[in-house]
Amino acid sequence: MVYTRTIIISTQGFCDIVDITDQIQKIVKESKIKEGICSIFVLGSTAGITTMEYEDGLIRDLKEFFQKTIPQDRSYYHDKTWKEANGFSHLRASLVGPSITVSINQTELNLGTWQQIVLLNFDNRSRERKISVTLIGD
Amino acid sequence: MVYTRTIIISTQGFCDIVDITDQIQKIVKESKIKEGICSIFVLGSTAGITTMEYEDGLIRDLKEFFQKTIPQDRSYYHDKTWKEANGFSHLRASLVGPSITVSINQTELNLGTWQQIVLLNFDNRSRERKISVTLIGD
Amino acid sequence: MVYTRTIIISTQGFCDIVDITDQIQKIVKESKIKEGICSIFVLGSTAGITTMEYEDGLIRDLKEFFQKTIPQDRSYYHDKTWKEANGFSHLRASLVGPSITVSINQTELNLGTWQQIVLLNFDNRSRERKISVTLIGD
Repeated sequence: MVYTRTIIISTQGFCDIVDITDQIQKIVKESKIKEGICSIFVLGSTAGITTMEYEDGLIRDLKEFFQKTIPQDRSYYHDKTWKEANGFSHLRASLVGPSITVSINQTELNLGTWQQIVLLNFDNRSRERKISVTLIGD
Repeated sequence: MVYTRTIIISTQGFCDIVDITDQIQKIVKESKIKEGICSIFVLGSTAGITTMEYEDGLIRDLKEFFQKTIPQDRSYYHDKTWKEANGFSHLRASLVGPSITVSINQTELNLGTWQQIVLLNFDNRSRERKISVTLIGD
Repeated sequence: MVYTRTIIISTQGFCDIVDITDQIQKIVKESKIKEGICSIFVLGSTAGITTMEYEDGLIRDLKEFFQKTIPQDRSYYHDKTWKEANGFSHLRASLVGPSITVSINQTELNLGTWQQIVLLNFDNRSRERKISVTLIGD
């Protein structure tokens, strides 16, 4: 059985980190799939998907990490191409990656106790982000 | 057909890297699935899954890379929240990501010759790590 | 339904970045799968898969990012093991990861407008890269 839904998430710019676990869990429940996988993919080249303990300190740590590793306040070749000045957003997105795959067991996402699924909007402006959620199982 | 198993792996702390290829391959054999995919997901927010050539030199290189990029001997905002001092573990885990998906062909994981599936325990202590392995195919 | 194909991509060495979206899209069309997922996995421990806006400026930015974060012109423990001097290639590959999973909707990859699927060959020489593409759906 295949069950597909698209969710739209409103995000702020500059490394906004949004917990999307509840929205995904709701889709799992609706699907009535007992055992299988849930593939989560963000459309766009300036956003990423990963998991984390969604907590204020870590949210701040993660933003600092990206700022240190791929700073926003310098110039990238991409910025010369499009004059958008979001080269840093693209690099961060390619590094984190657009997708993860989580197991479904007994119609629940099989996550750790302190593990949430997060969307990261790296772009330099607010965006409505589209996430494709595909469940496959019995 | 869906085939689900959970494996428990004993790990040391501080970037222990464990080759879990044989355990996953054993599950593929037991499932008798000929063609499909194998999704591997680690529960918890201080561990990651990736692939590498599992070799002593590279294991050391990878530990050094994480220590250079996300050092353990500094303070993170997360550490102030929980007094656990494992902020570095969380950041490394979110960067590597919790899941990969490997193809199954002829009831074998379709990996490169020098490519192993590894679990990385980034936490600052030994942990029993739970990995959810879900196979889907014919 | 499971549909499996292997594609071979010729790459240059030292962080060659190749857009493989059209080849994957062709497999999706051939499969006639309407709704489902497409798992893309590169065999080998010195290559990675991610998505990006495939554009000359960003290609250059991404190469610079890897050179800054995991430089090729220094020595790694791995280099002492095999005398291959490609320790940097392995670290970059483990960081990016070998796989992504994209949704299929109406027999199309569900990607963003400026989002392409790319293969990164991090090795220090040209390689024929093998990518396993597995589709599951209806």
